[in-house]
Amino acid sequence: MIERISILGTGLLGTSVGLALRAAGFRGTIVGWNRSKEHAELAMRMGAIDSVAADPIEAARASQVVLLSVPIYATLDFMEKLAPVLGSEHLVTDVGSTKGVISEAAARLYNTPERAAFLPGHPMAGKERGGAELGDANLFRGAVWLFTDNPDAQRSPHSAALVKGWREWVVAMGSRTLDLEPARHDELVAWVSHLPQFVATALSALLENAVGEAPELKDVGGRALREMTRLGASPFSMWRDIAHTNTDAIESALAALEQRLAHLRENLRTPALRDEFEQANRFRRE
Amino acid sequence: MIERISILGTGLLGTSVGLALRAAGFRGTIVGWNRSKEHAELAMRMGAIDSVAADPIEAARASQVVLLSVPIYATLDFMEKLAPVLGSEHLVTDVGSTKGVISEAAARLYNTPERAAFLPGHPMAGKERGGAELGDANLFRGAVWLFTDNPDAQRSPHSAALVKGWREWVVAMGSRTLDLEPARHDELVAWVSHLPQFVATALSALLENAVGEAPELKDVGGRALREMTRLGASPFSMWRDIAHTNTDAIESALAALEQRLAHLRENLRTPALRDEFEQANRFRRE
Repeated sequence: MIERISILGTGLLGTSVGLALRAAGFRGTIVGWNRSKEHAELAMRMGAIDSVAADPIEAARASQVVLLSVPIYATLDFMEKLAPVLGSEHLVTDVGSTKGVISEAAARLYNTPERAAFLPGHPMAGKERGGAELGDANLFRGAVWLFTDNPDAQRSPHSAALVKGWREWVVAMGSRTLDLEPARHDELVAWVSHLPQFVATALSALLENAVGEAPELKDVGGRALREMTRLGASPFSMWRDIAHTNTDAIESALAALEQRLAHLRENLRTPALRDEFEQANRFRRE
Repeated sequence: MIERISILGTGLLGTSVGLALRAAGFRGTIVGWNRSKEHAELAMRMGAIDSVAADPIEAARASQVVLLSVPIYATLDFMEKLAPVLGSEHLVTDVGSTKGVISEAAARLYNTPERAAFLPGHPMAGKERGGAELGDANLFRGAVWLFTDNPDAQRSPHSAALVKGWREWVVAMGSRTLDLEPARHDELVAWVSHLPQFVATALSALLENAVGEAPELKDVGGRALREMTRLGASPFSMWRDIAHTNTDAIESALAALEQRLAHLRENLRTPALRDEFEQANRFRRE
């Protein structure tokens, strides 16, 4: 039933969605747009999109499903611009890493019988570097794709059917879906996604000071060091918007980790160190 | 020239050394001993050792090279017991993760023309779980194997030749060797190995409190969370000795990270966040 999709933002996630849709058997048209046209053209050469749109608003109007795969503030900007020009025959969905501000905008601008539907989404998949060139048809395989939809949204039957259809494509791309309230989503991802990222950033930045002048020493750390700092390569451009739109939850998680590290530091030679290791072991039990 | 090796401690590292020596073409005999005899028998069935010794001291006396692959305090204990019964025809080496106390014991107990040689070693390779069953002939491939030998050690020509021979087998197992002073070693690994471990332990323990009651939520974090907490499974039994024998350097590294996390937390909405990401990006530049 979904036959025309536009992907606004052909970075890592947008390009991967195009490739994953094709791999899952999607036969309709996929139009792509990107702020940097070269990246959209690369996504086209990779087979993620059929054509490059010159105007994202026009591309959205001509589509049934519009995927916003851009940073959060750019997503909010598109939501404002698209709401007046789309209608009950459209679904807009996104991949933003925080859902509070996006769900608020969705309630204000979408999801009436006359307006387009908006389904707030968040695939828990990515890489430490972005860009169409890293696009991967298998990126969403085995991942959890979170939604923070409003169960009371008043939608036209047409756009409600598009919501259902998009959820089916998400499953076809290999993901498991999970529905959360927006506030619970933002609190949860502060713990399991944003905290690990900011820890990796702080650890990498600190190590650059401590041993960065002797790059051969990075090899000494081996796999453990590589893993613990891989996310240090993540781009500020994406994480700035996350830090700005989930500040309180991230602050709380970081403060809690600082306390935990201080506790561990003060107990390197006491039996409490055993308790910390055993508690950590429990998190990783099979 | 090295034809008889004993491996005291057939856990992950000892078993992997046996397998790696065989894979590298070692044709001599390898005798193994383990506190738990079943694990030594498993290592034998895996082909890592030829036979299981009942008495580790007797096995060491009958060998040219004795590899101590046990936790640090057990290594120190073996060093005390072996020094009086071995002589200039022997080399003892180890795999301990801190080298200060071991190098001190080596200077006190070994490395005279009449005594056995002791070569303090530390392969930067491992897994988050131990045990012979995880032994891997390729564990040391591409890893750095650190040594903190005393360049002024007064050895017999025979034991000096064994040191040279063992270094060649380390290279044959696929590792790159790097020589450091013991104090520099312990400071360096506090940054690139011990700090990442304790961060993973604190993060895993914290997350067990925060989301451990809902195990399905662990899946939400995806690859990033798995990587950042993999080391949370590491056993206290090994890390206790490391915490006890490198306390000052680990304390300093942890305190520095706490400060860095606090700085990041206080700047989630300021331009300083960009500086942290850019500094972290530099650590991960190719």
